[in-house]
Formats: sequence, C-alpha cells, structure tokens
Amino acid sequence: MNQLMREIREQPEGIARLITEHSEQFQRAAEAIRARNVKQVLIAARGTSDNAARYAQYLWGYQHRLPVALATPSLYTVYKTPPRLADTLVIGISQSGTSPDIVSVVADAQAQGMLTLAITNTAESPLAETAELVINCHAGLEQAVAATKTYTAQLAAVALLGAALGQDEAARTALLEVPVALERTLAANDQLEQAAQRYAPVRAGAVVGRGFNYCTAFEIALKVGELAYVGATPYSSADFMHGPIALVEPGYPVILVAPSGQVHAELHALGETLRERGADLLVVSDDEATLGLATTPMPLAAGLPEWATPLIAAVPGQLLGHHLAIAKGYDPMTPRSLNKITKTL
Amino acid sequence: MNQLMREIREQPEGIARLITEHSEQFQRAAEAIRARNVKQVLIAARGTSDNAARYAQYLWGYQHRLPVALATPSLYTVYKTPPRLADTLVIGISQSGTSPDIVSVVADAQAQGMLTLAITNTAESPLAETAELVINCHAGLEQAVAATKTYTAQLAAVALLGAALGQDEAARTALLEVPVALERTLAANDQLEQAAQRYAPVRAGAVVGRGFNYCTAFEIALKVGELAYVGATPYSSADFMHGPIALVEPGYPVILVAPSGQVHAELHALGETLRERGADLLVVSDDEATLGLATTPMPLAAGLPEWATPLIAAVPGQLLGHHLAIAKGYDPMTPRSLNKITKTL
Repeated sequence: MNQLMREIREQPEGIARLITEHSEQFQRAAEAIRARNVKQVLIAARGTSDNAARYAQYLWGYQHRLPVALATPSLYTVYKTPPRLADTLVIGISQSGTSPDIVSVVADAQAQGMLTLAITNTAESPLAETAELVINCHAGLEQAVAATKTYTAQLAAVALLGAALGQDEAARTALLEVPVALERTLAANDQLEQAAQRYAPVRAGAVVGRGFNYCTAFEIALKVGELAYVGATPYSSADFMHGPIALVEPGYPVILVAPSGQVHAELHALGETLRERGADLLVVSDDEATLGLATTPMPLAAGLPEWATPLIAAVPGQLLGHHLAIAKGYDPMTPRSLNKITKTL
Repeated sequence: MNQLMREIREQPEGIARLITEHSEQFQRAAEAIRARNVKQVLIAARGTSDNAARYAQYLWGYQHRLPVALATPSLYTVYKTPPRLADTLVIGISQSGTSPDIVSVVADAQAQGMLTLAITNTAESPLAETAELVINCHAGLEQAVAATKTYTAQLAAVALLGAALGQDEAARTALLEVPVALERTLAANDQLEQAAQRYAPVRAGAVVGRGFNYCTAFEIALKVGELAYVGATPYSSADFMHGPIALVEPGYPVILVAPSGQVHAELHALGETLRERGADLLVVSDDEATLGLATTPMPLAAGLPEWATPLIAAVPGQLLGHHLAIAKGYDPMTPRSLNKITKTL
C-alpha cells in the first residue's frame, strides 16, 4: 500500500480524533465569534482548501443564515486594492498555512480590525501566526502531494465550528457517525479499483453536484485531475443546464454527486436525462435507485444528514483518482509538476 | 454569415449605443445606490451572466473597494434558508430575466429590505419586475443560443455602473474606446478560422486567466464548450498551480488570457513554463512577446486599461468557438441539448 492510500485510509481515525480529542478549540473559537458582531464571513483558500471554503458557504448559510463569500486574493496581492470590510469574520484555510496570497487576505483583515481565523493542519505557520484565532485540523503529517485526509479534516473543522456556533448538540452528535460512515464508504475500494480500468482511456469529463455537495464536485474533479490527469470540469447541476450539458454525447463520462437529501430529486432526474443521452454515468450516492442509473456506482454509506454527506462523498473520488492513476501507468504519489506546498501570490 | 456571427459582429455597435444613448440609467442607478448605506454587493446569475458577475467582483473591488460576493441560489430555492443580509446591494444578472432561481434571490433581498438591481436585456421580465432598479443592456434581441453580444453588453453595464458610482469621467472616457477596440479585435477572424482546423480533434483543455480577466477564462471555456463541445476547464493562474497544472503534457491545449497590465508578468511567466512542458498554447493578448509564446495567437487590440480589457478579451474565444464548431461539423446556431432560455430552480 502506498502512502496516498494509507492517508486515504487514515480518514476515519483522523476525524474521530478531531471530534473527540480536539473539540475544545471549536467552543473557544465559537465564543470569540459570538462575542463580535459578525454579519458575514469571507474565506481565502486555494485548491482543495477552497473546496472546504465552498462547504462552509453552504453549511453556515443553511445552519446560521450567514452570508459566506470567497475572497479574491488578486485584489490584495496584484492590484493592491483590498475590499473594505465591515462586521466580517475573515478565515484563511490552508493545509500548510504558507501560501502568501492567503496570508495577505488575513493580514489585511487584521489591519482593518476584523476578527480573523486560520483553519490549518500546521499550527506553526505564517497563516496561524497571522490570524487571531486558530483551528488545528490535527490530521497528522500529510506526505502525498494530493490532499485527502487534510481535506476531510478541514470539512470536519467547518462542520464542528458550525455546530459550536449554534450550540447545536444534534449536529455534533450527527458528526460522531462520520468515522463509521467513512469506513463503510472505504469498503467500496476493490469495486472502484476494478472500475478504474474502464476509464483509463478517458481524457475529459464533468463532475456535477449541488448545494452542500457542490464542494464535492470540485474536489473530485481536482483529485482525478491531479492524480490521473483527467480534465474533469466541476459544475452545479443548475449551471450545467445553462450550457455545459451540450458536451454530453454517447460515452461522455459524468460523475454525479447525488446523496439522499433535498437536492437528490433534481440530481436523480438529471441522471435519468444523462443516461438517455448515453452518458457514461458514475454515481456517488447512498440511494439504490440513483446508483442503479450508473454505469459505475460509487456507493456511499447511508444514514448521515445531507449536510454531513460531504465528509464522506469525496472518498470514492479519492479512491477512483488513485486507482485511475495506476490504471493509466502513473505514480499517484508523485503527480507531475506539483509540490506538496504551493506558494502563490 | 449565420446569425451567431452576425451577433458577434454587432458587438461594437451595441456597446457604442449603450454608452452614448443609454447612459442616463447608470447615473440614476448610481444615485440610488449612493443614497443607501451599501457596504457590499451580492450577485445572482447563471452561465454567461455569472461571468459578468465575476467581472463585477474584481472591477468594483478595484474601483470602489466594495466586497462583491456571488450568491448561492440553492440556499434559497432548495434548502429555503436564505442568508440574512445587512447593508447589501443585491443584483440579478440575466439576459432573459426569467430564471426562477435568480428571481428568488432578488425577491428575498427585497423582502429583507435590501436595495435590488436587475441587469438584463429584457426590460419586461420577472427579474426586472422584481428588482427596485433596472439596467437594460439594450443589446437587441439575441437569437443564437450561445450568448455573445449580451455578454459584452453586461460587462459594459457593469463597467458603466462602476464609472457612474465613482463619478469617474476618466473611466467613462476609457470605455468610449471599447467599440473601436472591439472592431480591431474582430479583425482576427480569418486567422482564427484557419487556426480552428488544428483543434478539431481536441476534446479537453484548460483556460487560464486572473484578476479582471478571471471572468474571461470562464466565458471562453463556456463558449468552446457549448459551441464546439470541448471540455475546457477555467482556472485562475494561482489555482492552476495548486493541482491542475499536472494535466499539462506535450500537446495539451491551454488558452492563456494575458493582456497587458498588472497580472501580465505572472501570466507571461506561466506561458513560458507551459511552453517548456510542450503545451499547445493559445494566447489572448495585446503583448507581442506573450503572443510570441503561442502556437496560436489570439490577438487583442492594444491600448485599453487592464480593467477594461474583459470587454474585448472574450471575443477571440467567441470566434474560436464558432469556427471550431464548424470545423468539427456542428451547427453553431443549434448547440445540442440547449434552449435560448434556461429556467433552473
């Protein structure tokens, strides 16, 4: 087993540890946030961390009706005209805590007197040193270039902070189910290893999700891109209808992220349409009928509330990315052109 | 000449008309906005219109230091938990003004007592009727399914409103140069028609831009996708470094949007890197050295300030999309699976 696969398999344990051993930090951050007049949130992040930011956008909007926006770092680093903020909590999310563009957004927010928070896996980092509040993801050292366990740890941190902000015991209890659900989802590994063979010739495709799992569409697209060099474009199902659905022809691969919940009916209907048009459908779901539409089912453990499903829904994509890399003859540990830490301005 | 090409060619005239004959509406809207305590902007849009929203995000951040966020419509229509807004101008952008999800965001903002604005090409539409303020793009009826002249008209509306908000005569004067710059950019048509032959076998690629032209990367990706069924994924150059650059191998097509200005140096350097790795580089630029890196130059007229270049930079992409569709044997007037008006929830 290579290190990437080891890190993928460490996810249940890492999330369990974060929830049970490191939960005090979420209470502390939530108290500090409640003590301030926070009317909206701005998050700066890149790559995988930006997908965790997308999760926060939907989750905290849903739980707390908080407007959550994604930052535009070039306004800080390139144009030197950072937006003027008011009553805004500014968060930087970064595994390494080192990318200068992300640190710039948080440093500027500090200077503007905003409350700032770092969500990072590296407590001794420029990002953590810049922000007033720090949440440590405690995922342990991640050696593979492709982020897996640090991604789900970031999502768990977002969800635990959301629960703490609302003093929502039910949400915290639901999250306690995640480690077991991750284990069950990882059980599809052999099935996905076999399925990967079929997609070895694939160069491009789409990944479609919506709402809470809009982030999952982006994260799966990123994993199959950086590991297996498949040009997969992520879309919300609504945006997909406004143009990109024209790409679908017989054999065109589409990964549909469609767990049970409030967006399920729309995504199931889209799955039926795509199947009629001959798409090669890969379905990430816990719903038997929706999995039944798929050429390649990517099953999820059932039982989590929809808002918590992103914590497990990227996992079949991580496994597919890993196995697809091997099926194509690439080493998933050393994606070409990438380093573990990317510093951008 | 088909109707799509006619509409592409109408752009200089349409923008000139908007600036010279319909400028009063921008003054009126700007006065109404200045009369309110607007601390941030939230924009709801889909498809091409969402790319105009991305332009506003950077332009108004740059010009007015206004935080501009993109809406999350599923929080309104699917989860029924719209974010609580404060001191926010809420804008819906839509050519047809009919998509229920966009109207929902604006209607909810009205109910929350926020100032609302519709930017639309259809003054008698549900969106225009819902919003307090209306800006009409006056692009004339667009018949082709792929939006072209309504996109640049939306960008011009965003820029004219930005100039009016700042009572910025210099910005308005710069925009007066756009129609001529559009004409000059359209002169590359024959060159792009020839170049399209080369890309007929292409199924996937990347489009990279940053800052003001982040929107252009999205819009070109959407055009070549819906017209010529190329799965092109848009990235900011910074995000591209955090994973997707792994996709680049010899012959991999990358469209680089790199006009002169503050992001130019970074994009030129990326162009050099991509060329070293054997990418098939298409370069949208007015800079000779950067165009010189390209397998396929997509030249822009020179002389506009960087913030105004998005109004011309999508045009070579529109032309490429059109010619690529024909080179692949498709009819650019009738992209499969699409209708002119898409209504999503």
